[in-house]
Amino acid sequence: MTDTLKIGLLGHGTVGGAFDELVTERAGEIESATGRRAEISGVLTTSIGDFDEILAGADVIVELMGGTDAARDHVLAALNAGKPVITANKQLLAQHGSELYDAAERAGVQLRFEAAIAGVVPVVRVVQESFGAVEFTKISGIVNGTTNFILSEMASTGASYEDTLVRAQELGYAEADPTDDVNGADAAAKMAILARLAFHTPVTLDQVDFEGIEAVQPDDLEYAKELGLSLKLLGVAERLPDGITVRVFPCFLYRGHPLSPIEGPFNAVTVEAPEITEVTMSGPGAGGIQTAAAVLGDLVSIVSGDAPTHSALKQIPVLSDADSSFYLHLEVADEPGVLAEVAKVLSDGGVSVKSVVQRGIGDDARLVMVVHRCPEAKFKSAIDQIGRLASLRSGPRFIRVIEEEFV
Amino acid sequence: MTDTLKIGLLGHGTVGGAFDELVTERAGEIESATGRRAEISGVLTTSIGDFDEILAGADVIVELMGGTDAARDHVLAALNAGKPVITANKQLLAQHGSELYDAAERAGVQLRFEAAIAGVVPVVRVVQESFGAVEFTKISGIVNGTTNFILSEMASTGASYEDTLVRAQELGYAEADPTDDVNGADAAAKMAILARLAFHTPVTLDQVDFEGIEAVQPDDLEYAKELGLSLKLLGVAERLPDGITVRVFPCFLYRGHPLSPIEGPFNAVTVEAPEITEVTMSGPGAGGIQTAAAVLGDLVSIVSGDAPTHSALKQIPVLSDADSSFYLHLEVADEPGVLAEVAKVLSDGGVSVKSVVQRGIGDDARLVMVVHRCPEAKFKSAIDQIGRLASLRSGPRFIRVIEEEFV
Repeated sequence: MTDTLKIGLLGHGTVGGAFDELVTERAGEIESATGRRAEISGVLTTSIGDFDEILAGADVIVELMGGTDAARDHVLAALNAGKPVITANKQLLAQHGSELYDAAERAGVQLRFEAAIAGVVPVVRVVQESFGAVEFTKISGIVNGTTNFILSEMASTGASYEDTLVRAQELGYAEADPTDDVNGADAAAKMAILARLAFHTPVTLDQVDFEGIEAVQPDDLEYAKELGLSLKLLGVAERLPDGITVRVFPCFLYRGHPLSPIEGPFNAVTVEAPEITEVTMSGPGAGGIQTAAAVLGDLVSIVSGDAPTHSALKQIPVLSDADSSFYLHLEVADEPGVLAEVAKVLSDGGVSVKSVVQRGIGDDARLVMVVHRCPEAKFKSAIDQIGRLASLRSGPRFIRVIEEEFV
Repeated sequence: MTDTLKIGLLGHGTVGGAFDELVTERAGEIESATGRRAEISGVLTTSIGDFDEILAGADVIVELMGGTDAARDHVLAALNAGKPVITANKQLLAQHGSELYDAAERAGVQLRFEAAIAGVVPVVRVVQESFGAVEFTKISGIVNGTTNFILSEMASTGASYEDTLVRAQELGYAEADPTDDVNGADAAAKMAILARLAFHTPVTLDQVDFEGIEAVQPDDLEYAKELGLSLKLLGVAERLPDGITVRVFPCFLYRGHPLSPIEGPFNAVTVEAPEITEVTMSGPGAGGIQTAAAVLGDLVSIVSGDAPTHSALKQIPVLSDADSSFYLHLEVADEPGVLAEVAKVLSDGGVSVKSVVQRGIGDDARLVMVVHRCPEAKFKSAIDQIGRLASLRSGPRFIRVIEEEFV
């Protein structure tokens, strides 16, 4: 007789329901892979189930209820009781990660969360296991499918941000309240978790600078096309000489960057280190069934492996300033000397121009430039000065650019 | 005092030497990840070392010697002695896989081979572990970096196959004897291993139909550009109603296919299943240090996890006929009725045309078409008939096309 693997399931919404079905449908494959027959031994929702009873009867707890209050209590209780836990809850990990990793470490049980970061894209496993002894230099990710869908649509249709958001909501790619997706907060939580995994140092949510895509204009995308760029909301965690930075920002990528072809509601992550050069993983970023499949992968691993270590072994400073290259969009009076004036402010501020597109519109002109990588503080101080020039018709707009050359 | 992890290293060439260095350089990271201090306890080459002595003193054997005779004996001996083995040797696995997997299974030890398939791209781990309970429908891969470099170069420079091969050799992307790379045999071995992993059924090397890139002409690439296609040497393992097929062939991809942007000496694999939609992984396909990094990932896993199961649980027929879409290139007399004649042969044979480009050159014309997916046998029989038409100036040339629409 085969040993049963009893799963206590917390939450039975879209992902929880899909996971429940998948466990039944894939029972044969799970048994082949683990030697055990999986069954849902208890379900907790707001209306049914008793947590203590479910915990007592389960070999493993799967937390798909969301939120950070009850979820935190239940996950902690399970780990303290020596039961492994799988969660897809990025906010839980971003806000209470240290406490949970410590509890798992103390109890000697696994806490797995592949589904929390990039849906079914196996970035957690690859960072922790395939490249467990690699010293990463940089992790770049498109980790929010909603914003990637919106930016892809804006680029291909020329429509405004507002209209495209409505379309994304109609298609189910954006929530009724899309705030955390479009303002970058969701991506920031994922990047905090990923940076901790990659650099083995604690990263809290308030150490991640983030910007969203709400201010992106259709003409930014149009000029970008002329410059050979594509726009993504990018999370970047990078090792610098004095520490690491973790940031989320809308960003132009040159063609040839491995994340540049990722279109639509997809997620993708590129990891870099000298000994691996760069490895990129991509796939659907969300969806109940895809998230459930990632949880199922963790379930199989829990049965067949030991816990990957979560201990934060180092204390690396998390820095807030960083170097970036920028795209700069100015609406100026169409009169002689304006370009020279702008160029002088940039040059005096130590900011070097890489390319320029200028185009007249009536009495005004648009001046679009890309500047080389420089400290952000320098660039922003130059922008403040440019904002005060008499020839400027409206506030300067800028977007970061990733200008590294890839293989 | 930390427990030592003693590594018996077979082979000390490019990859073996790089692995030796990497173990020393990353000793701290390995210890953090596994709790053990790794050291090379013995090295076997053609001139130094005694295998039995090395085996007796090792906790794990790393086989980077290549070849299939001594390598097979040593790997079998190690597994039978209850020592886990890591190998990067695709020919060993493709030719003797069943015997080795069985030995590992019997001894209850791990046999890991991430580096054997797509260099540092973690496709083995993702297929076996992240998606261990997923029922795959299709695996598509660019699993040979040499041919992908050559095809990318031909497309961007317009140079001939022969000239580009010489350039690849100068740059170190092709061996002095490139036969197994350019004729598809190397990719076929990797696809046999991958198909076994994905479909849990034995696949032998002689069940993999393969074609190489030696016959690709610069003008194929030129016309392809007009049709919006890019050319790759693709391995495809696919589940069909009556079995599976495993094939390697040069192939045009539509823009939007996840493997279409993969350029240069890179590898990439896309896995598909209903619950994961599609997930793509890409990265450098070769290089000593990258291959060594993949071996190191396996080493960390051997210490921290149980063996993934290698047992072939099912017997699924491996079929040799399959459906494909084709690009067809004909040089014909530039006279009325030729297109109609060709179209009639195709239509009578049950082959349906999707798009046509016709262009005159002197007295002759080139007729380039893409036909819809149909059984290969049907297409080839139509091609035989077309080859006998009086209006044909040279033999018909054809290349497969992947025409599925991706998300």
